[in-house]
Amino acid sequence: MKQEFRKHSGNIKVSIGDDCAVFKDGTIVTKDIFSEGTHFILNRMKPYNIGWRCFAASLSDIAAMAGTPLHSLLAIGIPPELEVEKLKEMVKGIKSLSRLFKVDLIGGDTIGSKFLFLSFTIIGKAKKPVLRGGAKVGDAIYITGNIGDARMGYMLLREGERPTEKFLEPIPRIREAKELIKNYHINSMIDISDGVLIDAGHISDESGVGIDIDANKLPISKSVIEFCKNQEFDPVLFSLESGDEYELLFSSPDEINLPYVKEVGRVIPQEGVFIDGKGAKIGGFDHFGSRI
Amino acid sequence: MKQEFRKHSGNIKVSIGDDCAVFKDGTIVTKDIFSEGTHFILNRMKPYNIGWRCFAASLSDIAAMAGTPLHSLLAIGIPPELEVEKLKEMVKGIKSLSRLFKVDLIGGDTIGSKFLFLSFTIIGKAKKPVLRGGAKVGDAIYITGNIGDARMGYMLLREGERPTEKFLEPIPRIREAKELIKNYHINSMIDISDGVLIDAGHISDESGVGIDIDANKLPISKSVIEFCKNQEFDPVLFSLESGDEYELLFSSPDEINLPYVKEVGRVIPQEGVFIDGKGAKIGGFDHFGSRI
Repeated sequence: MKQEFRKHSGNIKVSIGDDCAVFKDGTIVTKDIFSEGTHFILNRMKPYNIGWRCFAASLSDIAAMAGTPLHSLLAIGIPPELEVEKLKEMVKGIKSLSRLFKVDLIGGDTIGSKFLFLSFTIIGKAKKPVLRGGAKVGDAIYITGNIGDARMGYMLLREGERPTEKFLEPIPRIREAKELIKNYHINSMIDISDGVLIDAGHISDESGVGIDIDANKLPISKSVIEFCKNQEFDPVLFSLESGDEYELLFSSPDEINLPYVKEVGRVIPQEGVFIDGKGAKIGGFDHFGSRI
Repeated sequence: MKQEFRKHSGNIKVSIGDDCAVFKDGTIVTKDIFSEGTHFILNRMKPYNIGWRCFAASLSDIAAMAGTPLHSLLAIGIPPELEVEKLKEMVKGIKSLSRLFKVDLIGGDTIGSKFLFLSFTIIGKAKKPVLRGGAKVGDAIYITGNIGDARMGYMLLREGERPTEKFLEPIPRIREAKELIKNYHINSMIDISDGVLIDAGHISDESGVGIDIDANKLPISKSVIEFCKNQEFDPVLFSLESGDEYELLFSSPDEINLPYVKEVGRVIPQEGVFIDGKGAKIGGFDHFGSRI
């Protein structure tokens, strides 16, 4: 369905098919929705963390463009049983993160709803927006931070345990993305929202290249490895399919030495996503269902 | 809650508290959400009409500023039982109206959801945005078109009958608003989305004035009068509390002679909304529940 909309008017450079729409003057806009059951679990998370985490997800799309978020609009669907106190706490979480990145809430809408959902529109600027479609054969593939923690976080929540701080209050990689484009050539970038496999597939599709990932180079935290061991999951597959990470996956011809960046593969001519040279079967995330 | 956000940064002229946020360069942005049960009835309306009507509601916020819509972002929450064909029909309705006003869809998001909802963000331009806060004592109060039809439409739907074309495919008053500001001084304007009583209250609040409406001047169609007679409703109260009309309510010091405009009252010094000089009790619309 998205493809139907892909024609666009004169002052739009990029529309559907990237993390944000990009205007010729450098304005970038992203819109996301988050709903109970798919993106958060109302009765297992503090409302403050729900607000924070959903807003972080939207800001992460701005980070994926190496942009600066400036203004936001918020729509909330409010179920009748949601206490006003909880709603206030949720807004507090959004405001805390807004302050951190100096994002100004300028509008929105609230409606009664059968379950809780949030939608953010964020308007920002990007002098040199980094797109998904610029990966070049020979580029190295890099990831910021660790992967796997988000999926572990959801599973812990479901089991009634407390996830990590990184899960509850993720910091979108706005500053890091800017540091990256300031110091290196970044040819393509995406934030890891659907999982590395699918998101690498988006770069592959948009760039017309392939991505080969070295399984043993993936940045997986000790706690995720431990968790996978206990649950009898393969930590590599588990982490490759972990969505909502809000880390960045990008390609660059440069050797990057930054503490939060790890090289995990390379761009190859044959289209598709490969793990250690073998074609990867992409599953894990169903856009029309729940995630895990 | 909305008030908490009312501080805003340097390049924003108007934020929460009007139909759109307004940037200093004349960019205007509005965001709305529409959900099953509150704004439309999935099994009683053609998906094409649902798409059209919800998008019209968002465009109506741009009309209320006398602006031109340029770009839109669409988020859809899709319930598992919604057939792809129905979804396509809904998008068709949105696209038809987009073509009519040359609005370019530039982005969005889809998620799985327990019920259908739509959220639009529309970005436009307004050279001289008309705000809610500019009404002046002595202005006449005007309404475009008729009121009451939207409420009648919902009631007909619920009873399994077919509502009017105006209900199914409303045309937001984008062109009319521009004609108005081109030819007259329009001091304040709002679109009738919560019902005349509440929306007049918004102009009153933001302008620090009162609005006195002449009940016998209200533009109520014959079919609404007939419907109210059969249902034993008071047609004036019924129409004053009818929301989602997408007509414009505005104030002007000028005598306006246009076929689609009717004078219905005046701006007075005492704050509040009055019907024939008597203070009006505002009910009808509950923002956290369903409408009728």
